[in-house]
Amino acid sequence: MTDRYEPYRNVAQRASVDAIALVPGANFSRLFGKEFHQNERPLLVVIPAIGAPAAVVPNLELASFEQIGFEGEVFDWRDQTGYQSAFESLLQHLPLGSVGVEGQVMRVFIDQALRNAAPGLTIRDAQQSISALRLRKNEEEISIIRKAIGISERALANTIDAVKVGMTERAIENILVQNLFAEGAEDFAFSPIVAAAENSARPHAHSRDDYAVKPGDSLLIDFGARAGGLCADITRTFFIQHCTDARAEVYQTVLAANLAGHAASIPGATAHDVDDATTRVLEESAFASRIRHKTGHGMGRDIHEDPYIMRGNEQKLEPGMVFTIEPGLYDLNDIGVRIEDDVLITTSGSESLTSFDKTLTYIG
Amino acid sequence: MTDRYEPYRNVAQRASVDAIALVPGANFSRLFGKEFHQNERPLLVVIPAIGAPAAVVPNLELASFEQIGFEGEVFDWRDQTGYQSAFESLLQHLPLGSVGVEGQVMRVFIDQALRNAAPGLTIRDAQQSISALRLRKNEEEISIIRKAIGISERALANTIDAVKVGMTERAIENILVQNLFAEGAEDFAFSPIVAAAENSARPHAHSRDDYAVKPGDSLLIDFGARAGGLCADITRTFFIQHCTDARAEVYQTVLAANLAGHAASIPGATAHDVDDATTRVLEESAFASRIRHKTGHGMGRDIHEDPYIMRGNEQKLEPGMVFTIEPGLYDLNDIGVRIEDDVLITTSGSESLTSFDKTLTYIG
Repeated sequence: MTDRYEPYRNVAQRASVDAIALVPGANFSRLFGKEFHQNERPLLVVIPAIGAPAAVVPNLELASFEQIGFEGEVFDWRDQTGYQSAFESLLQHLPLGSVGVEGQVMRVFIDQALRNAAPGLTIRDAQQSISALRLRKNEEEISIIRKAIGISERALANTIDAVKVGMTERAIENILVQNLFAEGAEDFAFSPIVAAAENSARPHAHSRDDYAVKPGDSLLIDFGARAGGLCADITRTFFIQHCTDARAEVYQTVLAANLAGHAASIPGATAHDVDDATTRVLEESAFASRIRHKTGHGMGRDIHEDPYIMRGNEQKLEPGMVFTIEPGLYDLNDIGVRIEDDVLITTSGSESLTSFDKTLTYIG
Repeated sequence: MTDRYEPYRNVAQRASVDAIALVPGANFSRLFGKEFHQNERPLLVVIPAIGAPAAVVPNLELASFEQIGFEGEVFDWRDQTGYQSAFESLLQHLPLGSVGVEGQVMRVFIDQALRNAAPGLTIRDAQQSISALRLRKNEEEISIIRKAIGISERALANTIDAVKVGMTERAIENILVQNLFAEGAEDFAFSPIVAAAENSARPHAHSRDDYAVKPGDSLLIDFGARAGGLCADITRTFFIQHCTDARAEVYQTVLAANLAGHAASIPGATAHDVDDATTRVLEESAFASRIRHKTGHGMGRDIHEDPYIMRGNEQKLEPGMVFTIEPGLYDLNDIGVRIEDDVLITTSGSESLTSFDKTLTYIG
């Protein structure tokens, strides 16, 4: 009999904790095949290194929770009485000295409910070892990521066809969003970024409803669909009608870095190697002062997850890993350019899952 | 000179902590007038009870962070060197014995970065007192909520016009989503729920792509636009072409509870009173066993925030508070019905910000 908890038990043992606790999020969805959302009502599954799991579940979620076929004891709680006693019951049922949690997912009030229920409980951030279970995507996951990318690229093609001089960033974003859902997105992978001119120099810009694009502007579009629980993430930077030679040179520098990143993405190389190959192209250019961030991040059920593609990360790349290569150059007195692909490590090298044209393109 | 930090200093003093720490989220957006998103890179603002604030900011967010006109010291950090030393620098610059945090917003890894930077630091969950600053909406916020609700109600009207027998829940959701953005939504307030028949009996259902609606089905639609940083939240339950007398009786019971909730929503009453008046209608009906949740929740920048409309919550209702009234009855062997409005407490009573028809309606 296969035991779906086995990988988590192993993580607990390797991390020398008595159990792993999961809250709604990417790890939870992957394990149970169903998405739950975090809100003000704590929901928590505890998987001990040895023995059956147990859960704290809000009473109103019981009907949804039953769909996951949970094998352990469930301690439900109602709004009127609160959740603290359910945590106490769980920790009496399952006495633990230590628990590993998802530090980037679990919020402080749940951490405190655990501590209050069992004073002396050691809570350790096991984010990285829990998330490591999601590092290598299986074939089904890869096929769903391809689908999310297909949706995104069709939406992008339709959007740039519609861009006209004089449209605001917000209006262009709205067209993009409608195209995204028309193509079959179930949600955003993250809030889209549609930023022109100097606003494109803010890596996490918000689209403006008071800036209309004009000839010569850059237009950076960074977005992705979520479909079937998995994400796409693509950035392209266009120019409205024309661009200066100096900006074209910035563009070609970022593109060269992007291509260097692809070339360095092979099994056995490290995340460090990919960032190093990519960033070195930027550093050796005339625009080194415009570097603002690392090369990329893993993606899957979370839009940002391991492996982070940055110098110093000696994580070896293995077939099935999916991550972004997204070098960028930013100058608040000029513009920003970013070109982002989603890359799959294969047994023989890598495959770019994104295939949208990267030639310098004029639109509008 | 007005000091935008004054309310937070007061919270710190009342909570007997040396400072309040904010991470990106609703409180952060309200204070600084700009949205930042949580991700794997910690961003934190610390507001001491006395003295200037300070912040930990990822280097790549500096250009965005500068837009908020932050008055204090900023400790930035880069991907390659990590964030821990920025936390240490901040806590050397601003030695604290205790800090109040947003327990439902801050994640464990930031809590641990604070603890590691200053062993002995007491971290207290001040969620409720920090969020209390958002309890009473100002006129600008109310006008933006009205706008978000208008977008949502127009999208709903267009959607039910398009529903046909044989459409899947997912297909109907997709139409809803496209209508939502066509009407001017900037984002979802939350993932929409479109659930028919027995799936409507799950309060937080996911839409199915393998279930087509058929005559006699219930169709529960719960969704809302986000616009200008504020939320709408509306639920209506329709029937496809016809419904049994028994189900119509369930519908009328929920509607009566909804109306009782409106009537009880007056300044000076408590959140308890509103839940009690609403839930009592359900309890005194033939369907008491189908109750699954409290009456409602505050809404604004967060889709779920104070005041929670539940028995035992003695929070007094004051003009400017906005919350949902959303009684529901659920039976997995039958259907679920929920009717949800957004209500504003006024000086003389309350106003329903949602105005979508609540008469039992056949569609499809």
